[in-house]
Amino acid sequence: PTGADTGSGTLKLAVIPGDGIGQEVTAEALKVLELAAPAGVKFEPTRYDLGAERYLATGEVLPDSVLAEIRDHDAILLGAVGGKPNDPNLPPGILERGLLLRLRFELDHYVNLRPSRIFPGVASPLANPGDVDFVVVREGTEGPYTGNGGALRVGTPHEIATEVSVNTAFGVERVVRDAFARAQRRARKKLTLVHKTNVLVNAGSVWWRLTQEVAREFPEVTVDYMHIDAAMIYMTTDPSRFDVIVTDNLFGDIITDLAAAITGGIGLAASGNINPDRTAPSMFEPVHGSAPDIAGQEKADPTAAILSVSLLLDHLGHSDAAAVVEAAVIADLAERSPATIRRTSEIGDAIASRVGG
Amino acid sequence: PTGADTGSGTLKLAVIPGDGIGQEVTAEALKVLELAAPAGVKFEPTRYDLGAERYLATGEVLPDSVLAEIRDHDAILLGAVGGKPNDPNLPPGILERGLLLRLRFELDHYVNLRPSRIFPGVASPLANPGDVDFVVVREGTEGPYTGNGGALRVGTPHEIATEVSVNTAFGVERVVRDAFARAQRRARKKLTLVHKTNVLVNAGSVWWRLTQEVAREFPEVTVDYMHIDAAMIYMTTDPSRFDVIVTDNLFGDIITDLAAAITGGIGLAASGNINPDRTAPSMFEPVHGSAPDIAGQEKADPTAAILSVSLLLDHLGHSDAAAVVEAAVIADLAERSPATIRRTSEIGDAIASRVGG
Ligand SMILES: CC(C)[C@H](C(=O)O)[C@@H](O)C(=O)O
Ligand SMILES: CC(C)[C@H](C(=O)O)[C@@H](O)C(=O)O
Repeated sequence: PTGADTGSGTLKLAVIPGDGIGQEVTAEALKVLELAAPAGVKFEPTRYDLGAERYLATGEVLPDSVLAEIRDHDAILLGAVGGKPNDPNLPPGILERGLLLRLRFELDHYVNLRPSRIFPGVASPLANPGDVDFVVVREGTEGPYTGNGGALRVGTPHEIATEVSVNTAFGVERVVRDAFARAQRRARKKLTLVHKTNVLVNAGSVWWRLTQEVAREFPEVTVDYMHIDAAMIYMTTDPSRFDVIVTDNLFGDIITDLAAAITGGIGLAASGNINPDRTAPSMFEPVHGSAPDIAGQEKADPTAAILSVSLLLDHLGHSDAAAVVEAAVIADLAERSPATIRRTSEIGDAIASRVGG
Repeated sequence: PTGADTGSGTLKLAVIPGDGIGQEVTAEALKVLELAAPAGVKFEPTRYDLGAERYLATGEVLPDSVLAEIRDHDAILLGAVGGKPNDPNLPPGILERGLLLRLRFELDHYVNLRPSRIFPGVASPLANPGDVDFVVVREGTEGPYTGNGGALRVGTPHEIATEVSVNTAFGVERVVRDAFARAQRRARKKLTLVHKTNVLVNAGSVWWRLTQEVAREFPEVTVDYMHIDAAMIYMTTDPSRFDVIVTDNLFGDIITDLAAAITGGIGLAASGNINPDRTAPSMFEPVHGSAPDIAGQEKADPTAAILSVSLLLDHLGHSDAAAVVEAAVIADLAERSPATIRRTSEIGDAIASRVGG
């Protein structure tokens, strides 16, 4: 199964709650998913305990056998990955690279999809954000995230450490084409390539060239280019100008957190790690991290995880069910009052009851 | 001369107006500098015509002989570098890497200093920015800016392009120490390292280790760490938390444009490319680019260039004169009205008259 099977039947869902608030928000997301499943469709969740706890107890991050099992699912729902900051037993990157990024790379999630909208009733930190509704197509399998690079004379005054950003025509072209296809399906049909072609000239020229080449296949789509630093400015002064943004793995990481911030916060930002060729299951997760400081206190907002369920349903071909979940979230957001602080499960219940009702 | 000579006498200033609005804003900056020079100090400007025009006419970017001449100055004032976007005769990076970055690297400007404050009367795009006053110490001679990397099978479907981020203990330690020393001199004495240690583990570990090591020399400074993506969020939701930020060349490029945006725009953001060892002249420039779309129309705001003059004076030991320039800018900003649009030279004249009066 690779997520190609739509229609009725049982869909196998691998669930990786992960660390910290990942546990809490995933529970709410599953609650909503169960209610949202269309008639005749049943999600069969299998839980995989991966993350900081397992690593600290066993030294295991993602055993090959577990990866093989996960691969045999229709989709993956992930909470968040990452232990307590500065835990001496948990070197930085172990879980991120060994678990989260390994899944993205092994399952060829080359489209990391991150929509940003300011929903009615949601406060933006921007004074005049305008009507914001864009999607970032972040490349997910290349760039500075490949783990290429290394270090010499580690720990000495002569240490030299490198990080290699790898960019292939194959890898760039496929994600750029996916982004164009998305732009083509949207009302404004606008695509903005974000990069730093004036400094990263090798990588930049691959991205630039393939954007120009693929553009010929989509004559209705308007193409724009922006340096990553300039994008910072437009994101805060005129974010409504964006429609589809396509960018590399690291720039995409950075810009989507900014996009989340200006559209009401990381508590609302959903993402899909998508394998458009459906050679492996796609993975859906909130953009936020494991937030160990508030974990286990029912303080986390499960909305991003629930919106990730909407992306999951959409990817599996259940676009009506996806729309129902999104509408339930929008309705809940519109009625939120800053005076009433709800627990994680209360927010989940409220959205679930709108989906189920 | 390397900027070590303070006190009276003639100071040799290399002026590189560069492209687009660089020309206009540099003229205003020089106007102010002349009036601000303390008694007994005279700035002797030598103009170097470098940039798109020269390159397009002659193919020259920065001849070695010109670099040698520039080196023999006490300081450099630069406008902006960069030609018209998509000019087929001007491949991306030619001027940026061949001129601007070459100067930064050859003259060992390892501290790229970028202060951010919301001055009274200046509007931020943020609804509640709070009391923002921080400085970014961006590393200037390493990271993904070194030009390491390359490409194979260029222009074919099998192209592979790399960009190598180079990070040395030597290079990181010196900029981190400079940042700590700055934090130590400030009221809040707080330093935030911004990186992406959970993904860029090789580079991240050098930055992390040396920040911890140098911290021991500055027991009064509070040290904090933030991933670059998380920094995007805090920069828009709670920017007043920052005091001194130290970060690598690329993250610094990105975060300082965001910092400029939230503190009133790129028209106000000044920077110093500083060689703290004074083995070569330091270079002062606005953070903004050459903005070819508005060039020659007297629409550019020269404030960032003028504030760069304040940084220049400070670096040369003339802190009183630096303060006078900054105070003149602050007074001008406080009286600006959105209803009155002034020409570039009108703004320059207004600030100059406050300095000269
Ligand atoms: C946790 C981290 C490895 C991850 C990333 O950098 O991609 C996260 O920030 C994200 O955006 O999904
Ligand atoms: C023009 C460009 C090379 C430069 C940079 O990336 O450093 C600019 O964006 C800056 O911030 O000074």
